[in-house]
Amino acid sequence: MKEAYEALAKNPANYVPLTPISFLQRTAEIYGEREAIIYGTRRYSWRQCYERCLRMASSLTELGIGKGDTVAVLAFNTPEMFEAHFFVPMTGAVLNTINTRLDAETLAYILDFGEAKVLIVDRELLPLAQKALQQTKQKPLLILIDDETALQKPDVELEVKHYEELIISGDPEFSCPPLEDEWQALSLNYTSGTTGKPKGVVYHHRGAYLMSMGTAAGWELPNHPRYLYCVPMFHCNGWCHVWTMTLLAATVVCMRAFSPKLLFDLLERHEVTHFAGAPVVLNMLANAPPEEQKHFERSIKVMTAGAPPPPKVLENMTKFGFEVMHTYGLTETYGHILLSAPQAEWKTKSEDRRAELLSRQGVRFPTMEEVKVIDPQTQVPVPADGNTIGEIVMRGNTTMKGYLNNEKATAEAFSGGWFHSGDLAVVHEDGYIQIKDRAKDIIISGGENISSVEIENVLYQHPDINEAAVVAMQDETWGEVPCAFVELKTGKNTDAQQLIEFCTERLARFKKPKKIIFGPLPKTATGKIQKHELRGRIK
Amino acid sequence: MKEAYEALAKNPANYVPLTPISFLQRTAEIYGEREAIIYGTRRYSWRQCYERCLRMASSLTELGIGKGDTVAVLAFNTPEMFEAHFFVPMTGAVLNTINTRLDAETLAYILDFGEAKVLIVDRELLPLAQKALQQTKQKPLLILIDDETALQKPDVELEVKHYEELIISGDPEFSCPPLEDEWQALSLNYTSGTTGKPKGVVYHHRGAYLMSMGTAAGWELPNHPRYLYCVPMFHCNGWCHVWTMTLLAATVVCMRAFSPKLLFDLLERHEVTHFAGAPVVLNMLANAPPEEQKHFERSIKVMTAGAPPPPKVLENMTKFGFEVMHTYGLTETYGHILLSAPQAEWKTKSEDRRAELLSRQGVRFPTMEEVKVIDPQTQVPVPADGNTIGEIVMRGNTTMKGYLNNEKATAEAFSGGWFHSGDLAVVHEDGYIQIKDRAKDIIISGGENISSVEIENVLYQHPDINEAAVVAMQDETWGEVPCAFVELKTGKNTDAQQLIEFCTERLARFKKPKKIIFGPLPKTATGKIQKHELRGRIK
Repeated sequence: MKEAYEALAKNPANYVPLTPISFLQRTAEIYGEREAIIYGTRRYSWRQCYERCLRMASSLTELGIGKGDTVAVLAFNTPEMFEAHFFVPMTGAVLNTINTRLDAETLAYILDFGEAKVLIVDRELLPLAQKALQQTKQKPLLILIDDETALQKPDVELEVKHYEELIISGDPEFSCPPLEDEWQALSLNYTSGTTGKPKGVVYHHRGAYLMSMGTAAGWELPNHPRYLYCVPMFHCNGWCHVWTMTLLAATVVCMRAFSPKLLFDLLERHEVTHFAGAPVVLNMLANAPPEEQKHFERSIKVMTAGAPPPPKVLENMTKFGFEVMHTYGLTETYGHILLSAPQAEWKTKSEDRRAELLSRQGVRFPTMEEVKVIDPQTQVPVPADGNTIGEIVMRGNTTMKGYLNNEKATAEAFSGGWFHSGDLAVVHEDGYIQIKDRAKDIIISGGENISSVEIENVLYQHPDINEAAVVAMQDETWGEVPCAFVELKTGKNTDAQQLIEFCTERLARFKKPKKIIFGPLPKTATGKIQKHELRGRIK
Repeated sequence: MKEAYEALAKNPANYVPLTPISFLQRTAEIYGEREAIIYGTRRYSWRQCYERCLRMASSLTELGIGKGDTVAVLAFNTPEMFEAHFFVPMTGAVLNTINTRLDAETLAYILDFGEAKVLIVDRELLPLAQKALQQTKQKPLLILIDDETALQKPDVELEVKHYEELIISGDPEFSCPPLEDEWQALSLNYTSGTTGKPKGVVYHHRGAYLMSMGTAAGWELPNHPRYLYCVPMFHCNGWCHVWTMTLLAATVVCMRAFSPKLLFDLLERHEVTHFAGAPVVLNMLANAPPEEQKHFERSIKVMTAGAPPPPKVLENMTKFGFEVMHTYGLTETYGHILLSAPQAEWKTKSEDRRAELLSRQGVRFPTMEEVKVIDPQTQVPVPADGNTIGEIVMRGNTTMKGYLNNEKATAEAFSGGWFHSGDLAVVHEDGYIQIKDRAKDIIISGGENISSVEIENVLYQHPDINEAAVVAMQDETWGEVPCAFVELKTGKNTDAQQLIEFCTERLARFKKPKKIIFGPLPKTATGKIQKHELRGRIK
């Protein structure tokens, strides 16, 4: 019967390319009058949001934007940024959201590299854009988001079109050109480029659609969550939550700039049920002045990802009423692909043990097909002993198309039919994965692998420490030894000797830092501690 | 940049064909020790379920089953039936579950038409299988499910392999051949055959994967539901809930044969949170003896599909603690594609109005891309006035590949790039769809579609009958039952009892007419029998 089964072909009625644009169409159709977006005093229903996106897509189309063009956005988490995630792909173009904290030179590099035809920019960022555009070959059309809450009035003279004017002049009956191929590029996200130039990670429509479905199932999202958009949407398209929340007809509260006080206030004022944020955000909430903190009776679900949050921080979250789901992912994987899925029997464990279990990065989301930890030399999976370190590799539909115009890096990342994360981890007996370090952050001391993260977790347990980062320092005897950079909380004055003793009590002797250096820690635009800079300081 | 974006190609790390088999692999990996299946005194964890499926897939492969072969299953809702939904596709073969209530002749037709290489059969159904196999060209290998709770011991002599022996001899380390194309056929489900022979509806892996994701989001399913499998798995693969429940690592309680008492008992004993059933099932629950009924403090979510249950029945459901979600779908659409998604403002309506709103079939699931109601003549959508009747058409990824070996029917069903349901409906002002009349001739009895033409064909075989027409008659228990209008040949006087017996010998029992009305049949000028007038007579 093989031939008979295979003879049944695809047609427009039984095969439709997957795209997250479909979520907006459905949600506007069914839940048109529900509140979609809350931002300051602005409110949009799903019907309004869809109509605005159609109008903007029609205006961009009029301006000559279409399939394969890059539309860059340099903006904060405002309604315009949310809308761009729909109206740009509606035209067939590729959305390139850009980190707002970049320097002008990197911004110029990105605009040129992606050949941006349009740059949609928040008025506060116009001076930065101008500086970048003085260096670019590419001269994109500028569209200004004239957000009245922006801190800075534009004091630059650039020819711009106005976002709201393009909305008004747009056609609310715009008919999107049908997506022909779900493999088509949807968005372009740059890596932070810790080693040289940032790479342009390309997502496709299929991946974003599946990422949303997988997040809904993996994070157990209900319909109509009330979601606070704290993660910058320029990060992996805000972990693809723009699309996930649209699928679920959520109400999305936009947060232009993060502060602990504003976050607590918004959670309360808008009865937020879900938000997501990097561990550094959780850390800032935990260390906020008590008068700014709020404790909630109801449970608020929080997704975090990135460096494992120290157990101490997770403990603090529980006090606020936050139920933290720890995840792991990369720009290359549309955001989170592992989650610390809780097991029924964890309830019977001690609180400490439970925090430990929950702080592991865990197991794969339903839309990631396979994740394993392999010996980088032999490519063989490491034993599930919680001890042997290997590299995390994976395959699945929420892995990028590749790096834009970078065949070499693309081929390397995908070598052997697996995506190589560059992150080092162990596998526990129960199959849960725990990140130990970035490959380049591991410290090799006397032949032993030492995880810098493990030492950092111990340091974070010290009551006087605000932030800590551990890097390898050259050593004549051991090759490398750990060196800790520490920023104390205001008014504290613990010394190096005390901190080393603190570590010695809690770690294998060979893992204790040999040196402690005090002072503020340098960070990337995305808030990641810049370890390469710290390494440079002790060379 | 179009070329640069398009240059990024699919590879094994970033493109994996979608298949529901992936759900079992993940769930067994992460929730291996959770209870997967409960059936009588039998219990399987997800690890055991996966291992049994691997063993059975390896045994079938050993027996020569592979890509494009048809494996038929004639069984009740037992663990074997559940497992077949995984181990058959694991071999690359196509799963053909068959209605257990069919007559031997139709069964024979199905086995031949699909060229079944294997027939997995419950021992209670072995006599029926034997009768069918006496008529088939195809001689499938028989695998016996020797369920100890089966009513009937096989009193037939057929050479069979034993299911559990194939499990034992199978390889638990079996490596499934990787799915090359998500468009590959996954299962074969027969329609009831409104105009003569049943048609073979072919599902593909992509559709079943997406159906599960869409059901989870649309029905707001949590992880680990406790699901009672009441819908026969031979119906649209049990509305694809086999796969959905595996995605969510549910605990599935199998129910071999329906009775209200058993259902209430199982709900209580196993703390069931979700189940699904045809309206006739709800009706039977509502009409069960009070001593068999149970009322629950907790809310139990119930999905129903088909004719809207009468308000009286819905009212009863509320008393039991059931929260009913009304849906609509067809065999051709993997089951449910519309749902009566509740709107926030419905809470403020009167109870009667709310019941009315909830009894409409509603709006599309996220995985169905577009559903509209069109004028069958002009193909133009009918106005959303709650009054103008048109045909429901749709397009989306949960629409069948097509009808097996039936180009004509496939082309007709997909004409103009839409799947034509043959069901008649109106669209209300809020966009919600309400079915007004199933395709005119179909009779929906106890959740089964009965073709009036099939019964008429039998009646016409009777030597005394001149003309016959069968229409649906309302029935308190079954929703609808067949009523036959018969005009005897002059001078003949066969009575109703004799005609019903005549049909019983030639049709599945549930298809026999419950009532025979004698007399001349009303006709149009062109000689067509006016069925709508006959329906009017028995209202």
